[in-house]
Amino acid sequence: MSMASPPTDRLPDFSGYHLDRADHLRADPAALAALMAHTQARWLCMEGFDPLLAEEGGLLWSEGPQGTQEASAILLGLHQDCPHFVLLEETGLEAPTFRSPRVMETLAVLNAQDMAIFGAVRSLMAWHGQHRFCGRCGAPTLLHRGGWGRRCSACEREHFPRVDPVVIMVAEHGGRALVGRQAAWPTGRYSALAGFLEPGETMEEAVARELWEEAGVRATRVHYVTSQPWPFPAQLMLACVAEVDSDLLNTDANELEHAMWVTPAEVLAALNGDPAAPFAAPPPYAVAHALLRHWAAGTGAGGR
Amino acid sequence: MSMASPPTDRLPDFSGYHLDRADHLRADPAALAALMAHTQARWLCMEGFDPLLAEEGGLLWSEGPQGTQEASAILLGLHQDCPHFVLLEETGLEAPTFRSPRVMETLAVLNAQDMAIFGAVRSLMAWHGQHRFCGRCGAPTLLHRGGWGRRCSACEREHFPRVDPVVIMVAEHGGRALVGRQAAWPTGRYSALAGFLEPGETMEEAVARELWEEAGVRATRVHYVTSQPWPFPAQLMLACVAEVDSDLLNTDANELEHAMWVTPAEVLAALNGDPAAPFAAPPPYAVAHALLRHWAAGTGAGGR
Repeated sequence: MSMASPPTDRLPDFSGYHLDRADHLRADPAALAALMAHTQARWLCMEGFDPLLAEEGGLLWSEGPQGTQEASAILLGLHQDCPHFVLLEETGLEAPTFRSPRVMETLAVLNAQDMAIFGAVRSLMAWHGQHRFCGRCGAPTLLHRGGWGRRCSACEREHFPRVDPVVIMVAEHGGRALVGRQAAWPTGRYSALAGFLEPGETMEEAVARELWEEAGVRATRVHYVTSQPWPFPAQLMLACVAEVDSDLLNTDANELEHAMWVTPAEVLAALNGDPAAPFAAPPPYAVAHALLRHWAAGTGAGGR
Repeated sequence: MSMASPPTDRLPDFSGYHLDRADHLRADPAALAALMAHTQARWLCMEGFDPLLAEEGGLLWSEGPQGTQEASAILLGLHQDCPHFVLLEETGLEAPTFRSPRVMETLAVLNAQDMAIFGAVRSLMAWHGQHRFCGRCGAPTLLHRGGWGRRCSACEREHFPRVDPVVIMVAEHGGRALVGRQAAWPTGRYSALAGFLEPGETMEEAVARELWEEAGVRATRVHYVTSQPWPFPAQLMLACVAEVDSDLLNTDANELEHAMWVTPAEVLAALNGDPAAPFAAPPPYAVAHALLRHWAAGTGAGGR
């Protein structure tokens, strides 16, 4: 499957989950039990939120669950009729932040297919850890639907994994793109602006609001480019180019340390790691990287 | 602000929230208190999850909170420096379903601006009611950040309003569009297929998965069309056209009672309420209506 305007030659990182999620089996306890007893079942080996890696590289899978408790098996899906699981330890362990050294090391060695599995597992496990009690009545919740939900042990309300839509955008004016940096980022790093979408707004309205709040520029048109699942902990990144009516900035110092307008040549230099570039680009696994490349390659807004 | 390819002449219903959300004021207790004491402050009058309506039509606003408790005020935003609030009653009241008669009556009489306010308020209030306890530790949570969050009274974890991304799509093959109906829908009603996006997938992958699960068709290209906030309780509808590689259907009877391929002329007849149309269209306030009109008007996939 391809997108209308692929921003790069490859799919965004953390996408391309190759397992059949088999939604119809999740709610069928007998089918789930049969899959767990399947001789070909594979279990992802984890240590907390970090996957164990195979000697030859890639994710490590075992033939049986390394742990116990039927109730905590998450059905990741099927591949050629072979069920794939991960065991959820209900310990209330907190997910490490994105910038933990071990997460960075893991990302550096996984191939695209493994990154997609890792991302989905990490999002799911982080969600389970933060939903061990029912938000409605406070009673403990139990894993449900093969790990793709939880159910309250008292009021029986079902809870489903959360995915938070985030808009991330390049503002464009006069052939230049707006990039900004947060104070906590690595030295010299600039990227697209971004923010969480709120109840009661379209994707396009969220893009316009964030650009106004963070940089004081007004969007006149918004063009969707691509999307990416981001597993820290579970965002849907919606990447856009926004035409704005002025290049006069009014930056919110609480959000951005600095923002500036850059040319396509400057963006390409940054993406290509040119030491003479005026900024350091976001890493290749971030959708901002693909968005900036899409914009700089001239396939962005206004038929550029 | 306009979209790249507006599917209709007007914004999607429930969008167009005209208040400045004033995010920077939400976390500032002194600023919030000053806004609540503002002589021009307006308070939305609600009865549970239903807005009270003014005699001349539209939402009813009062000059002071009809109730009490400072902690339960939600800052909806500012309009020309005039703060707008709604009071949240922390009663654990359950939001009525979309098809409650009173909700239908309310939707029928509100103008676009009021529908946007109603939608955002309803999403927020429903979220508060389902997050009165901390999912991480089970202790009670308290309203926080002017109503745009809650904080745990024990572990202090912050919780933010949830918005669930949902993909909704017209599959296209040979110049015809795929529409389906669920058994619970009004007689004759058909619409675009839809489903919740899951952790670990792009928007495009979610579209392809839903079409495969529900109708047995394989997407080859996916084109984003438009988005809509849907307040029952809080979805972000992401509307797409998907080219599929065959018109052979394999419908999931658990999801769809029936699905069929329709021509642009048949879609237009349905949207225009023609009694000779082969199906009844979704209502104008649903994004499926705009999506079908966009497709039938020939601005859909493949340069049609």
